[in-house]
Amino acid sequence: MLPGFLARAVELLLGREGRSLHLKAAGGATALLGAVMLAGSWAVVAAEQDALRANLRTYPQALWWSIETATTVGYGDFYPVTFGGRVIGAVVMVVGITTYGMVTAALATWFVGREQQRRHHLALHARELGEETVHALHERFDRLERMMAGNGERK
Amino acid sequence: MLPGFLARAVELLLGREGRSLHLKAAGGATALLGAVMLAGSWAVVAAEQDALRANLRTYPQALWWSIETATTVGYGDFYPVTFGGRVIGAVVMVVGITTYGMVTAALATWFVGREQQRRHHLALHARELGEETVHALHERFDRLERMMAGNGERK
Amino acid sequence: MLPGFLARAVELLLGREGRSLHLKAAGGATALLGAVMLAGSWAVVAAEQDALRANLRTYPQALWWSIETATTVGYGDFYPVTFGGRVIGAVVMVVGITTYGMVTAALATWFVGREQQRRHHLALHARELGEETVHALHERFDRLERMMAGNGERK
Amino acid sequence: MLPGFLARAVELLLGREGRSLHLKAAGGATALLGAVMLAGSWAVVAAEQDALRANLRTYPQALWWSIETATTVGYGDFYPVTFGGRVIGAVVMVVGITTYGMVTAALATWFVGREQQRRHHLALHARELGEETVHALHERFDRLERMMAGNGERK
Repeated sequence: MLPGFLARAVELLLGREGRSLHLKAAGGATALLGAVMLAGSWAVVAAEQDALRANLRTYPQALWWSIETATTVGYGDFYPVTFGGRVIGAVVMVVGITTYGMVTAALATWFVGREQQRRHHLALHARELGEETVHALHERFDRLERMMAGNGERK
Repeated sequence: MLPGFLARAVELLLGREGRSLHLKAAGGATALLGAVMLAGSWAVVAAEQDALRANLRTYPQALWWSIETATTVGYGDFYPVTFGGRVIGAVVMVVGITTYGMVTAALATWFVGREQQRRHHLALHARELGEETVHALHERFDRLERMMAGNGERK
Repeated sequence: MLPGFLARAVELLLGREGRSLHLKAAGGATALLGAVMLAGSWAVVAAEQDALRANLRTYPQALWWSIETATTVGYGDFYPVTFGGRVIGAVVMVVGITTYGMVTAALATWFVGREQQRRHHLALHARELGEETVHALHERFDRLERMMAGNGERK
Repeated sequence: MLPGFLARAVELLLGREGRSLHLKAAGGATALLGAVMLAGSWAVVAAEQDALRANLRTYPQALWWSIETATTVGYGDFYPVTFGGRVIGAVVMVVGITTYGMVTAALATWFVGREQQRRHHLALHARELGEETVHALHERFDRLERMMAGNGERK
C-alpha cells in the first residue's frame, strides 16, 4: 500500500510535462525524503536491534529520530550506535539537507521569476514599439513609390 | 491581545498591494513562524504535562525549546517525549526551516535584482539608441521626398 | 583594541563604494556575526555565573558554545540555563542563520551573474548586428539619393 | 592512496575548462569537505587522545562525528573537549555549512537558468523577426531603385 501511495505521489509531482524544472526537482526531492525517512526508520531499528547501548528500538521512536535528523535539529535523545545505523543516519542527513537546499533554490527561482516579469513586460513593450516603427517605415516606402509613380506618369 | 497583535503584524506585512512577492512571502513566513512558536510552546506543555519523563514543563522553558528547535540548534536540554509533543515539534521544525529558506531566497532575489539593474540601465540605453536610429531613418525619407518633389517641379 | 580591529574590518568590508550590495551584505553580516559571537560569549558567562546548574562558566567554553550555536550544530555539551543567557543564545542563533542565509544568497547572486554574462555577450552581439543593419540602410539611402540626383541632372 | 584519489576527484571536478563557475564551486567545495572530514576525523582523535573526559577515541567514531558535525545535526553523542579538537570541529562546521550554501546556490543558478531559457528563446525569436524586417526593408529599396531606373530610362 505504501509503495503504491508513494508511486502515485511521485507521479503526481513528476508526471506533468509542463512543470518547471525547479518545481519538479523540489517536489521529487521532498517525495524522496519522505520515502527515505519512512524506509530509514524501519531499517535503523533493524540495524540497532541487537546493539548493547542502542536507544532506537521502536518504529515510532525511529520516525521521530528521522524527523529531527532530516531537519538537522538533532536533540540527542535518539541516535544510532551501530555502523549500519550510522550509515542510514548519514543518508537521512544528506537527503534532508539536499532537499532543503532544493526547496530554498526553488523558492528563489520563483521569486526571481516574479521580479523579472516586470522587466519582461518592459521587453514586450519595446517589441511592440519596434513593430510600430517597422510599420511606419513601410508606409513611408509606400508614399515614396506613389510619388515616383506620379513623377513617371506626369512625363 | 496576542491574536490582535499578530493580526496587525500580518496585515502590516501582507497588506500593502505594491510589495514584491518575495518580501510578502518572507514576511508572512516569519510572522507565521512567530505564531507557531508562541502557540506551539503553549501546546507542547499541555501535551507533555502528564508524561513520566517529560522535561518540557513550563511555558518559559517551552519558548526557549521552540527557539532552539526552529533554528535547528537542538541542544537536547529540552525535547518532547509524547506523540502529541513530537507532532508539535515536527511542525515547529518544518515551519522554521521553510521560513529560513524563504528568507534566504528573498535575500537572493533582492541581491540578484540589484545586480540586474545595471544591465537594465544598459537595455534602456540600447532602446534610446534605437529611437535615435528610427528618427534618422525618417529624416532621410523626408530628404528623399523633398528631392523627388524638386525633380517633379523642375520639369 | 578589539573594537578598533572590528571597526577596521567593518570599514574594509563596507567602505568601498563600488562594491555590489550582495558582497557588502554578506561581508557586513559576517563581521556582525563575529562581533556578536565575541560579545555574546562574554555576556553569556556573566549571565550564567550565579546560576546553580550552569555549565557555561569560562570565556573559552563560551566561545566554543557560540561557534556550535551560530552554526546550529548544538551538541548539548554547553547551553544557557538562565533567562538572560537564553536571550543571548537566541540572538547568536538568529544572527548566525541570517548570516548564513546572506552568504548563500550572495553566492547564488555571484553564480547567476556569471551565467548571465554569456547571455549578456549575446545581447551585445545582437546590438552590434543592429548597428550594421542601420549602417546598411543609410548606405542604401545614399545610393538612392545619388540615383535621384543623376535622374535630375540628366534632364 | 587517499591523496591520489582525492587529487583525481578534484581534477575531475575542477579540470574541465568549459564548466560553469557554479558547478566548479559546488563540486570543489564538496571535494574539499570530503577531504576536511577525512583529515579532521584523524586529527580530532590525535588531539583528544590524552584528554580526561574525551569521548572521541577511535577513527570510525570520529568519522561519524564529522558527518553529524558537517551536516550541523550535532546529536551530542560525540564532541571534542580539548582546544585543538574544538578548532578542528569549528573548521568542519564552517566548511560544512559553506559547502551546503554553495550547493544550494548552484541549484538556484541551475533552476534560474532553466527558467530564463524560455525568455531567451523569446529573445532569439525577436531577433529572427528583426532579421526578417531588415530583409523586407532591403527588398523595398531594391524595388524603389528598379522604379527609379525605369523612370530614368523611359526619358
